[in-house]
Amino acid sequence: MIQPLFWRDNRLLIVDQTLLPHEYRLIEIHDHIAMAEALRRLAVRGAPAIGIAAAFGLVVGLRSSLNLTPGAFQHRLCAISDVLRNTRPTAVNLFHALERMEKCAVCNRAYSNHELWERLLAEAQAIHSEDIAMCQRIAETGLGLLPDPVNIMTHCNAGGLATGGLGTALGIIIHAHHSGRQVHVFVNETRPLLQGTRLTAWELQQEGVPFTICTDNSAAHLMQHATIQLVLTGADRIAANGDSANKIGTYALAILARHHRIPFYIAAPSTTIDPAIPTGLDIPIEERPESEVLEFAGIPVAPSGSRATAPAFDVTPAGLIEAIITEDQIFYAPFHFVL
Amino acid sequence: MIQPLFWRDNRLLIVDQTLLPHEYRLIEIHDHIAMAEALRRLAVRGAPAIGIAAAFGLVVGLRSSLNLTPGAFQHRLCAISDVLRNTRPTAVNLFHALERMEKCAVCNRAYSNHELWERLLAEAQAIHSEDIAMCQRIAETGLGLLPDPVNIMTHCNAGGLATGGLGTALGIIIHAHHSGRQVHVFVNETRPLLQGTRLTAWELQQEGVPFTICTDNSAAHLMQHATIQLVLTGADRIAANGDSANKIGTYALAILARHHRIPFYIAAPSTTIDPAIPTGLDIPIEERPESEVLEFAGIPVAPSGSRATAPAFDVTPAGLIEAIITEDQIFYAPFHFVL
Repeated sequence: MIQPLFWRDNRLLIVDQTLLPHEYRLIEIHDHIAMAEALRRLAVRGAPAIGIAAAFGLVVGLRSSLNLTPGAFQHRLCAISDVLRNTRPTAVNLFHALERMEKCAVCNRAYSNHELWERLLAEAQAIHSEDIAMCQRIAETGLGLLPDPVNIMTHCNAGGLATGGLGTALGIIIHAHHSGRQVHVFVNETRPLLQGTRLTAWELQQEGVPFTICTDNSAAHLMQHATIQLVLTGADRIAANGDSANKIGTYALAILARHHRIPFYIAAPSTTIDPAIPTGLDIPIEERPESEVLEFAGIPVAPSGSRATAPAFDVTPAGLIEAIITEDQIFYAPFHFVL
Repeated sequence: MIQPLFWRDNRLLIVDQTLLPHEYRLIEIHDHIAMAEALRRLAVRGAPAIGIAAAFGLVVGLRSSLNLTPGAFQHRLCAISDVLRNTRPTAVNLFHALERMEKCAVCNRAYSNHELWERLLAEAQAIHSEDIAMCQRIAETGLGLLPDPVNIMTHCNAGGLATGGLGTALGIIIHAHHSGRQVHVFVNETRPLLQGTRLTAWELQQEGVPFTICTDNSAAHLMQHATIQLVLTGADRIAANGDSANKIGTYALAILARHHRIPFYIAAPSTTIDPAIPTGLDIPIEERPESEVLEFAGIPVAPSGSRATAPAFDVTPAGLIEAIITEDQIFYAPFHFVL
């Protein structure tokens, strides 16, 4: 199974996803500063993976603080958590994972720093293994929605690199393929950082799933020619009313799917649903550096002095979403989540 | 005025648009083979510019045939015309320009080869100068459709580099700017070859028009946030019913504009309307090499062995087009062209 990170011999290793598909390189993360940097530069990305990575980032960040007094240790934990929390604003999994780690620290504050640290490590590992199980259940739950044969369009990367396990949207697809279904995936390249071309195509190739890469702007043309039977993506945060934030371009796909009467589905663990957020209007959208649009691999593409807008995510209103597939159940619009 | 090509001292020079915006290089085109190659590799592109370039390509291609018999000269002309005709299938301007040159040759067949060649040169120059005039009239005709101030989204490049003159869609925008209107342009980068980022941004910068570059997949997000008041693009071929072929991604924009109740306009010379083509279904869509999607500036982006689809154009059904702006008049849907 493709994994975004590994805990091995008391060391935290992450796959540097910025180097894929040409190089699969593991880099060691020694502390929370390095983890925050890795999160910001998208060496590890994908909503569930961000949460898992932050939990482990807290664990490695605390390692040098074991000799502090218990009170100072708890303070240090909060400070580290804040550093990690301030890396990416949109995906809710980051906040959930850090809250869970903080709660673990509070509940176990009677223990020695060493014992507490072991419990925090176990908590991070639990977050990781629970995500693996959730991906497996999402894959099984979603399978029933797919016709056979089917051409599926997906956007960005909602696979093993983005999660603890098989992936969310891609998990369903890979599970369908291994279950003998005839699945062909149209992989949107996903500008500006090409997570589709670089990561999703790489994962599908590893898993033997047939795929075709297409520019994001060719989706409507492909739908017009009846090439696509459904659209399936992940999500970074789902509001209480079902409005869903995901990679920039997802909202466009949902409109195009509706126009062509093709179902648009989201697959995500139920932890992606944020009941504290009433509608998508309240989901903060990360703006990325302009250079991600104006340059390619460090080479300027635009005329010098050009400005760009680089929202990393957009919000698809619930009304455009046919169903949201979680590990437990499939929610259909209008959404009334009972979690 | 930005020009895609120049006839100077009996030499044909084209701007190699593949090098823009970083380098503005004129290259000499010695014969029709070189022109066909330049058309195919998009050194000169844009529907009206393709027609003009093909006409001049025929002129330079014939230069080495002046000593043939008049009959052989006419044969040679047809053979050269066929080479140029087989470069790009979608834009109708290529076929119009070559037909016009062939007609000129037939009408002037009584003249010596030298005299006929001079008349063909004059015909190519007429095609060019008529296009300059048409662009100016399109710009004046379209001005009335723009609110003030206005944020306009455009796609690909429909400017001076794509035409003989000011441009079609971009001509209206530049004319509005120079008329004192407050215009801000959202330039879709236009994957895979980034004509928006490379060419449209460059032209707007030259003309002093304020602009912001955005990925094609962020259009819906920008419309959702009321950032865009109208969408304006060029066209490569317009069927008799108004269905319009233009750069891949245009059809998606038209759907997104309709969804957000934003007008979607096309600007094109009336010669882009092809009455021989009843509907958009009959417009041939060029498929470009996969490498244009899988590589960037020759550097592979996708995993080795990946496949891609690379349609260069798509067809926007007439029902999604609010109006088509030509040099003479604005046609409103439903379209009944009286040319």
